[in-house]
Amino acid sequence: MSALSTPLTLRVTLDLPDWLDAEIDLSRVYDGDEAKVDLAIRLALRNVEEGTGGPFGALVFDGDGRIVSAGVNRVVPQSCSVAHAEMMAFMSGQARLGRARFNEEGSFTLATSAQPCCMCYGASFWAGLDTMLIGARAEDVTELSAFDEGPLPADWIGELRARGIEVRRDLSRDAARDVFHKYAAKNGAAY
Amino acid sequence: MSALSTPLTLRVTLDLPDWLDAEIDLSRVYDGDEAKVDLAIRLALRNVEEGTGGPFGALVFDGDGRIVSAGVNRVVPQSCSVAHAEMMAFMSGQARLGRARFNEEGSFTLATSAQPCCMCYGASFWAGLDTMLIGARAEDVTELSAFDEGPLPADWIGELRARGIEVRRDLSRDAARDVFHKYAAKNGAAY
Repeated sequence: MSALSTPLTLRVTLDLPDWLDAEIDLSRVYDGDEAKVDLAIRLALRNVEEGTGGPFGALVFDGDGRIVSAGVNRVVPQSCSVAHAEMMAFMSGQARLGRARFNEEGSFTLATSAQPCCMCYGASFWAGLDTMLIGARAEDVTELSAFDEGPLPADWIGELRARGIEVRRDLSRDAARDVFHKYAAKNGAAY
Repeated sequence: MSALSTPLTLRVTLDLPDWLDAEIDLSRVYDGDEAKVDLAIRLALRNVEEGTGGPFGALVFDGDGRIVSAGVNRVVPQSCSVAHAEMMAFMSGQARLGRARFNEEGSFTLATSAQPCCMCYGASFWAGLDTMLIGARAEDVTELSAFDEGPLPADWIGELRARGIEVRRDLSRDAARDVFHKYAAKNGAAY
């Protein structure tokens, strides 16, 4: 395998698409759950339209409703199975704040266009969140696309709540589902 | 919060420690399960000794038993809750091979010094693995340190096997547990 003649990789670099900057107004206060999830859905849709990754978007908001970070699915463009929308939002937000746990100070909300997969679900316990806002359900993702969400604990919402993370879902669910229709219509790859 | 006056972060960079290069012999063939896990344990121990992160190490091997990538826990030094040893091995290995799924071609093994937490467990489904080799059990991690493994599906091993990932554990378990003793003796932070 010729790739293995390369040296060990000691630095990982993951980029978000350039168009993201123009979608984000850092001074705006996003009041209410729907406004936050609606923006995550908008990022998911634009990621499909721009061809910059899979049909998923996510943001982290601080306690004032201001944006800390944004992420979209970058698995194929960045050749990285970890680069889901929620993971990109966690990693870029922690880099911006300079700490590994958001709510070491203040309270923080993840807004995601679709129910987190088993990886992003697990990552949510360590990111430092107080609230998780979800658009589409897992069954919307798997019904309307070939994406797989992976295995979760039976009471996945209860496990989050038991560790201090409140969950609210079905926020703008129809709009969230529509992103998968649009992605399927473009014959997007599933991963 | 003054950190929020900074622009949105569009690039995430995660570094592994410089000492890692000297520990890795890319030409060596690691025969057998124990040899692979023993190296993961050695990396975990050195990460504690060097003060470059938490007491966890992981590697990805190809079907010939050669090293594709290595990772150690970098959560605190890199201010990133995602930077667990397994995640660093996945991301750096995929960057090295230039693809998001290891076993798109060939077969691949994760060797980890301790049972993956809920995030790394979830990530293992998407990384493209055929085999998972584990040193310490989750109860060793939580008994001997304040680290939390998070919630898993009831039959977590069965879920991996059902998706084509064989699991073998308790490999060099005593040596793997000893890393947590040494970490605790240094009063290392848990996260």
